[in-house]
Amino acid sequence: MKHRIFAFTFFVICIFSTITSYGETAIVEKKKFVIENFKTMSGTTLPELLVGWQSMGTLNSTKSNVILVSHYLLGTSHFAGKYNPDDKRAGYWDYIIGPGKAVDTNKYFVLSIDSPANANTKNPNVFTTGPASINPETGKQYGTDFPVITARDVVNVQHVLLSHLGINELHATMGASMGSHISLEWASAFPEMVKRVISVVGHGESNVWSQTQLGTWGASIRNDPNWNKGDYYDGAYPSDGMAESLSHLFLAANHGHAYEKKFKAANAQNREPWIDIKEDFESTNLIYDLAVKRAAIYDPNSYLYLLRLCQLFRLGHGDSLEAGIKPLKAKILLLPSEFDEIIGPYMTENFRNLLIRQNKHVVYDEIYAPWGHLDGIIAIGTKADVISKFLDET
Amino acid sequence: MKHRIFAFTFFVICIFSTITSYGETAIVEKKKFVIENFKTMSGTTLPELLVGWQSMGTLNSTKSNVILVSHYLLGTSHFAGKYNPDDKRAGYWDYIIGPGKAVDTNKYFVLSIDSPANANTKNPNVFTTGPASINPETGKQYGTDFPVITARDVVNVQHVLLSHLGINELHATMGASMGSHISLEWASAFPEMVKRVISVVGHGESNVWSQTQLGTWGASIRNDPNWNKGDYYDGAYPSDGMAESLSHLFLAANHGHAYEKKFKAANAQNREPWIDIKEDFESTNLIYDLAVKRAAIYDPNSYLYLLRLCQLFRLGHGDSLEAGIKPLKAKILLLPSEFDEIIGPYMTENFRNLLIRQNKHVVYDEIYAPWGHLDGIIAIGTKADVISKFLDET
Repeated sequence: MKHRIFAFTFFVICIFSTITSYGETAIVEKKKFVIENFKTMSGTTLPELLVGWQSMGTLNSTKSNVILVSHYLLGTSHFAGKYNPDDKRAGYWDYIIGPGKAVDTNKYFVLSIDSPANANTKNPNVFTTGPASINPETGKQYGTDFPVITARDVVNVQHVLLSHLGINELHATMGASMGSHISLEWASAFPEMVKRVISVVGHGESNVWSQTQLGTWGASIRNDPNWNKGDYYDGAYPSDGMAESLSHLFLAANHGHAYEKKFKAANAQNREPWIDIKEDFESTNLIYDLAVKRAAIYDPNSYLYLLRLCQLFRLGHGDSLEAGIKPLKAKILLLPSEFDEIIGPYMTENFRNLLIRQNKHVVYDEIYAPWGHLDGIIAIGTKADVISKFLDET
Repeated sequence: MKHRIFAFTFFVICIFSTITSYGETAIVEKKKFVIENFKTMSGTTLPELLVGWQSMGTLNSTKSNVILVSHYLLGTSHFAGKYNPDDKRAGYWDYIIGPGKAVDTNKYFVLSIDSPANANTKNPNVFTTGPASINPETGKQYGTDFPVITARDVVNVQHVLLSHLGINELHATMGASMGSHISLEWASAFPEMVKRVISVVGHGESNVWSQTQLGTWGASIRNDPNWNKGDYYDGAYPSDGMAESLSHLFLAANHGHAYEKKFKAANAQNREPWIDIKEDFESTNLIYDLAVKRAAIYDPNSYLYLLRLCQLFRLGHGDSLEAGIKPLKAKILLLPSEFDEIIGPYMTENFRNLLIRQNKHVVYDEIYAPWGHLDGIIAIGTKADVISKFLDET
C-alpha cells in the first residue's frame, strides 16, 4: 500500500529524472544481415532469413565490450539514436543508451537486431523475415505456413550474426518485456558467453494468466473474418480485429494512474455519454483511435507470431523453469514495474525467488512510476544509476 | 508483497470457510412490480417500468429489519435461495444470506430487485424494462432510444417499490461491484433512511481508467456490424462483439492466481500452440467458449446500458465525490478484494480516505482470495463474520 502512494508521489521526480538523463542523441545506421538455411526449434528450415540491425559505440580489440539489446513485441532494433538529425524521435531507450549515458557508448559497443516476424513490416528501416515475407517455395507470402518461433529461435538468429562479427562474449544482454525474454534466454542457451542480463518488466516464464491474456489479444485477430486463416495479403487486412486487439493491449500496458493523469479533465467534460448510449468517453475514444491508427502500421500475422513467442516463453524452453535456470552463469538485474498489469511484479518476484534458491547472483529493483508496463520504456531513466552500476561492476 | 503471499497461502482456508458457511438453502418466490411514468435523471419519462424482485425473511412490525441487496452487472435479484428445490444452483450470495447465516433471515427481511435494463432478458425469472422491451409509443423495442440510466435511477426505482411496501428505513444496503454503486448511492440519496452500507469490491466513483476499461468492453459490441446502432432485434444479434467483450470481462474478473490453479496442467500439455499459430492454449479457448456461450444468454444493448451505469458512477452524481459523501449518515463497510483487476483496492482505499476526512464511520477489510473481482461473489463467505458483526452493531 505504501509503495503505491510512494510511487505516485514520486511521479514528478521520476519524470524529471528521465529528462535529466536524456543527453546527446547519436546518429545511427541501419544494416542488413542474411542467414541461409536457418533451422527453427520446431524443425522447419527457412532458406533465407533477413534481419536488420544497428549499433552504437566501438567494438574494442578483445571484442569484450558488447551489449546486446533485444526489443519489445511491437518494437524494432532502433534502441537509441536517430537515423537522421531531422528524425522527430530517437530510438525508444535513448534515455539511457548513448555517449555518457547509463549504457555509455563511449565504453560499450551496443547493438540490436530486428526480430524475425517483426510486426513493423511497412517501416522502411525494418528488415525481417516473417509471415508477410515471400516464401521462395511458393512465390507467395508465408502467412500461417511460417513456423512458430520462440525466444530461443530469436537467440539463435542473433547468435549467427554475432558469430559473423566475431563476437564470443557479451558484457550484457538487456531488453524490456519480450526483449527481456530473449535477453534471459541468451544466458540459459549460451551461459559461457553472457556475463550479465538486465531484465526490464520481465519474468522467467509466461504463467497461465499471461498465456490467456496474450491469447485473447490474438483471438481478436483470428476472429476477424478478414484474417482468413492468415491468408489476407491479396485482400482486405483484418484491420478491425487488429485494432480491437491493440485497444486491449494499450489498455493493459498503461496503469490506472496514468489514465487519471492524462484524461481526467477531458472525461469530466464529456456530456454525451450521459445522454447517448452510442457515445463514449474521450479516453475510450482516444484508445480506439490510437489502436485504429496503429493497426494500419503493423502486420497482424507477424504480431500474432510474436504474441505466441511470448505465450511460449519459459527460460531454457525445457520441462521446467528450474531446469532453465540451472545453467545460468550471468549476473541478473530484475527491474519490474510496480503497477504493471501485463507482467506484474509478483511474476518477477517468483522468478527472483527461484534464482536465489539456485544461488544465482540477482539484483532486484522496482520501477516506481504510474504507467505500468509502459514504464519499462518511458520511465527507464529513473533506473539509470542502477543500470550503470550493474554494468560497471566486475 | 506480504499480502500477496499471505493471500495465496490462505486460499485453502478461504475455500473451506466458504463451504462451511454454506448452510440451509431457502425457497424463494419471484414477484413483479410495475411503476408508471418513471422519470429518469436524464429527463425521460418511461410510461411503464417493470421490475422483478424477491425476498427472504419476515418484515417486522416496525418495518425496521430490512436489508436491500443490489446485484452486480450481469446478475439478477436472485441473491440467495432456490426457486425450486431441484434448481441446480442457489442465488449467488447464498453463502452468506439465509436462515442462521451471516445475513440472518431469521432476523432480517432481505430483498433484492432486478435492475432496469437487466441483461438477463431471456431468463424467465427476470423481469425488467430496458432497451429490449417494447416501447409503447412505437410498438418496437426501445433499442438505443432507451434513456441512459444511472445508479441514482436504480435507487429511485427501488425507492418506489420500498415505499409501496411501506418501508422507510433500511437496516442496510449491500451489493458487489455495480451492486456496491447502487448500495452506496442509496446512502447519499436518502441519508435518513440508510443505517449501514456494505460495499463489496466497490469504490466511490469510476475513475478514468475504469471508464476506459468499461468503455473498451462496450466498444467491442458497438464495433460489431450486427449491432446496427442497437437496432438488431429483428435481425442477427451482435453475438461476436458480445463474446469478444465478455472474454475481456472474464479475463479481468479472474486474477492470475486463479488461472494458474485452474489451467496449469491443461496448458502444459498443449502441444498445438507450439506448432500451429492458428491454435491456442486451452485456457484461452475455454475463456472464449464460455464467452460465446454466455453471449447467447445476455441482451447486448442491456449490457451496454449497465456498463454505462458503471462508467457514470460517482457517489451522489454531483460535481465531486466529496460532495456526494457529505450527506452520508450510514456506517460504511468496505470489502475490496486484494487481487481485483477491475476495482482495485487502491480505488477503494482512495474512497476510504475521503470518507475518513469527512469523519464518516468506516470499517475497512480486504478479501484475500485468488480470483480478484470475482471473489466479491465466490469468496464472500470468508468475510461472513465481518459482515455479521457489522450488521449487528448498534
